[in-house]
This record gives sequence, structure tokens and C-alpha cells, in this order.
Amino acid sequence: MDQIKVIHWGLGAMGAGIARMVQDKKGLVSVAAIERSPAKHGKDLGELLEPGRVSGVTVMPDFGSLSPAVTGPADIVLHATASFTREVVDDLIAAVEAGLNVITTAEEMAFPWAGAPEEARRIDQAARANAVTVLGAGVNPGFVLDTLIITLTGVCERVDAIRAARINDLSPFGPTVLRTQGVGTTPEEFAAGVAAGTIVGHVGFPESMSMIAKAIGWRLDRIEQEREPIVSATYRETPYVKVRPGMVAGCRHVASGYGEGRLLIRLEHPQQIHLEDVATGDFIWIDGRPPVAVQIMPRYPVGSAQSRSSST
Amino acid sequence: MDQIKVIHWGLGAMGAGIARMVQDKKGLVSVAAIERSPAKHGKDLGELLEPGRVSGVTVMPDFGSLSPAVTGPADIVLHATASFTREVVDDLIAAVEAGLNVITTAEEMAFPWAGAPEEARRIDQAARANAVTVLGAGVNPGFVLDTLIITLTGVCERVDAIRAARINDLSPFGPTVLRTQGVGTTPEEFAAGVAAGTIVGHVGFPESMSMIAKAIGWRLDRIEQEREPIVSATYRETPYVKVRPGMVAGCRHVASGYGEGRLLIRLEHPQQIHLEDVATGDFIWIDGRPPVAVQIMPRYPVGSAQSRSSST
Repeated sequence: MDQIKVIHWGLGAMGAGIARMVQDKKGLVSVAAIERSPAKHGKDLGELLEPGRVSGVTVMPDFGSLSPAVTGPADIVLHATASFTREVVDDLIAAVEAGLNVITTAEEMAFPWAGAPEEARRIDQAARANAVTVLGAGVNPGFVLDTLIITLTGVCERVDAIRAARINDLSPFGPTVLRTQGVGTTPEEFAAGVAAGTIVGHVGFPESMSMIAKAIGWRLDRIEQEREPIVSATYRETPYVKVRPGMVAGCRHVASGYGEGRLLIRLEHPQQIHLEDVATGDFIWIDGRPPVAVQIMPRYPVGSAQSRSSST
Repeated sequence: MDQIKVIHWGLGAMGAGIARMVQDKKGLVSVAAIERSPAKHGKDLGELLEPGRVSGVTVMPDFGSLSPAVTGPADIVLHATASFTREVVDDLIAAVEAGLNVITTAEEMAFPWAGAPEEARRIDQAARANAVTVLGAGVNPGFVLDTLIITLTGVCERVDAIRAARINDLSPFGPTVLRTQGVGTTPEEFAAGVAAGTIVGHVGFPESMSMIAKAIGWRLDRIEQEREPIVSATYRETPYVKVRPGMVAGCRHVASGYGEGRLLIRLEHPQQIHLEDVATGDFIWIDGRPPVAVQIMPRYPVGSAQSRSSST
């Protein structure tokens, strides 16, 4: 079997985790690596991932600095730099115009038409013109609260409504993720953070909902999102945060998608450190013929993303 | 939206259930119907499904009796006549050569290369030559113990082994299904029926296992199947069978797929009437990175297939 020649773009916690996985896969070989951070330029990719494991691939600062002798025979870019389509659109189009397929971890790219339709159109057009594919992939968005749900509806004669919940534990995460979920704030600070846009909750609800609606053939008229503080009754602590009783241990982010005159999709994603009285899990309920109830416990872990906080 | 023009082939319990569903779907329209049973020839398809609901489609005895004016503009054949590839191969190729896509309920067609590789090759070749697709679809095989499992592995870095169980209730089924599962036999009769091939258990394990192995990249060296009687401790009864204590209430069919020097896949499908002490459910465990444990309760119902016994 010919090995698939991979270019790594982005070597933060997520990108490095992906690159580490590629080193262990028989069918894949790393042929180039790009990372913005100057501290990594000129380093050997293998050494960077695991001291002593020389790969012969030198980390470069940007796509333009790669030789056509490298990009020409390469097959795919694994891209892991940022969350939003507008932040990654230029990277993706540069790769596509070099004739490369792309998989990106950018959350919005799971369904870019939801948040950035003009950029989605440009990427789609460039990919078609160059006969390559661009996929936004991830555990969530990209799988648990959208692709998996769509798959589960595949044997339903009729789907009337969908509800799903992903209950996870933020304890392994670093300060950036904890901050974006409001962990360690007071309820007042939490409300102010949500209003200011610094406490964002989960990135991906409009993407997951739009993907589901398109697959089922529903027209969504509006998507409402609520971010509520999970106020702790107990003392909880991680290496990065201390939460006293009455303080915020996480964010309960809920999205509701309305259309066809009713509530069609409701997705819940409570994220906190050290859960009280609940177990982590992924839950999906399809109201239809037949009805379907699925439980995944413990939840799908976020894999390489566990330590992503260090890069985002 | 243009409606998809459907030809129904087979109007037993399963085919009639499918046809009934098509009548309720906005995107589909029935343009022809074929049924071997002479009692249905010349009848109106709508009337046959629901008295008073005239469709204007007359039930014909075979594919050859359909006018090219009907098959020409049609898009797809929904085929529901039998379980085994060798029983349906001629039908499928006739439809394909008329330029029609096909979805068939034949269990073996979920992955025909497992049980009938030569027929699979012929169907594949004919479909490619006519630029149409042929899909073997069903709840099981076709979804719960194969497609869904493959989907769930999609976010695994590594898959080491797979185990799944589908625990269902045969109480709604008719005499033919009950007989093929040995319900109502003595343990001695059950053993004799398995040896004689009249008690078959589930049709589809080699198909599901081969499909999973191909998706993951495993080479299966052998598949072992065991069919054990579920001996009842209590009196159980349905309109079609009476099971006294000590008699057989169903068949516990287990398949094990070996390869790469170990047990790779184990699928269990205990089927009985009126379960004792267990609930129905579909269960999937993926041993890998990450491990995944999924529970669907109650199990995916078999939908139109519930009453299939009357036709098979």
C-alpha cells in the first residue's frame, strides 16, 4: 500500500497529538510540518514530539516556505491552528490551490455554512476547482452531537425532534479552556463574562444543528443559545483553579433550534470540573418512528484535545 | 424538488411496509410494483396497502412485464423478496441493466462478498457498467451490528477488538421466524434442527463481520458461529407458540471472528419470546483508544420487519 503523505499545519497541543498519532500509523507518513511559533522553527518534527525520535522533517514557519518538491507529491494537510472559519480560510485555500486535500480541526469548519457562508462558498469553490476535499473534523462538533446523530436517524422512517446531551469533565484542561467556560468566577463575573463574550461555552452548536437540519431536510428558522453558570455546592480544585462553594464550576450551554413551527433540536453541553452527582456521558434521544435512545458512558473522550488548552 | 420514482419489487410484509412508508414520503412516488404471488396481480398498489387508497399503480407479476415507458424514467427499485444473494442476483442485475439503482433487503446483500463473492462481483460489475448503485440495507445486518459500529470507530485512534450484542424479543413474530429460531422445540429437537440447518438463528453475521473488518483494515482468518438453545424456566406463550418450562424459548447465536492472531470481533444476538430477567437492547463495546461503550435501550426495533414472518 502506498503511504498517504501528510503535511502537518499547526503543532500546538492538538496538532502535536495528531502528528504523534501519524508517527504510529502504518498507512501515513509525515512529509512536512508548519508551526507559527518561532520556538519550534528549524526543529526536527520527530524530536519535537518525542526526544530522540528523529523524523527528518524540519518544522517550517509557514506554508509558503515549503518547497514545491514537498507539496507536489503530498496528499493531505492536517490543519490544527484555530477554531473559526475566518481565521483559517486563507490557509485552507492556499493548501487546496496547491492540490492538497485538507482535514482541519477548526470547530466552525464542521459546517462552515452556519457561521461563515461566504468563506464556505470560497473554500468549496476552490476545492471543486482543484478536485480535492476539505473536511472539518472533530469529536464535537463533527461527531458526537451531529454526525453520530445523523447516522442514528438513518434507520428511522420519520424524525420528529432530536435531543442530545454531552456531559463532560473539564478537570484535565488548562487555564485557557477553564477561562472560556467561566470556571472559578463568581456568578456575577460569569454573567458579565457571557455578556462581554469572554465566557463563550461550547463552540459549534450552530454548526451541529445546521448539519443535522440539512441531513434531515428541516429548515431552521432560529437557533437560541443559553449559557448558565454551574454554581458549586462544594469545594473543587484542579492544578489551575480553585472553586469555593457558591462559585462557578463550569458552564451549562444549551442550544435550541426552532423551525417547522416547533422545537426541532435541543443540544445540551454542561462542562465543569469535578462533577457532583452526575456521571459523564453522551446521550442522544430521537423522537420519531422508531424512537431511539442512546447512551455512551463514559462520554467519548476528547483525545488529543485534552491538553489543548496549552495552545488555544 | 423532483420526486424520486420508485419501483417496488416484492410486496410481502416487508415490501408492503416499505411501500406504505413511500406513500407517506413527500420526496418519493411509487410508479410500479411487482409481486410474485398471483393473488396480488392486477390489484391497485394503494388499495392493497390500505383499502380505499387508490394509487393508479397496478401490481405486475415480474420485472419483464413492466413497460419501458415505466422503467425508463424510474429512478430506483426497492427490492424485498428474499434473504440470500444467490436468490436475488438475477433480479438485481435485471434492474441494474435497465439503468435503475437498487436498494434490497436481502440480508446477505449487506456485504455480499462474504457469502457469495462471485455474485457480488457480477452485481458490482453490472452496476459500474450502468453507472448505478446497489445497496443492501437493513436494521441488522446493515446497521446495528456493522454500519453503526464502523461509525463509532470513526473517532478512535486505534481499534483493538469489538464486541456487540443485540438482545431482542421475538414475541411479535409469526410462525416462520419462530421456527427458524427453534422457539417451541425441545432442547433435543433444537440440536437436531441446528444440525439439519432448519434452525438457522440470525442471517448476517459473516456479512457484518466482513464489513467491519474491511472498514478497519483487519484480515479475518476464520469466523466461528454457535447456536445455543435458550431453555425457558417459565411458561411463555404467543399467538403462535407455547413454551413450557424446559422447552426452548429462542436461540442464542454468537459469532466470533479471528484474525491477526486473536479474537477481533464477537457479535451476540440472543433472540427469544418474552424475555426473562433481561431487557432488550443494543450494546457495542470498542476496545481501543479511546475505548467506547454504547447502549441503545430499548433496541432498535425492526420496523416493517416485525410482521415479516408472514412473508418469509
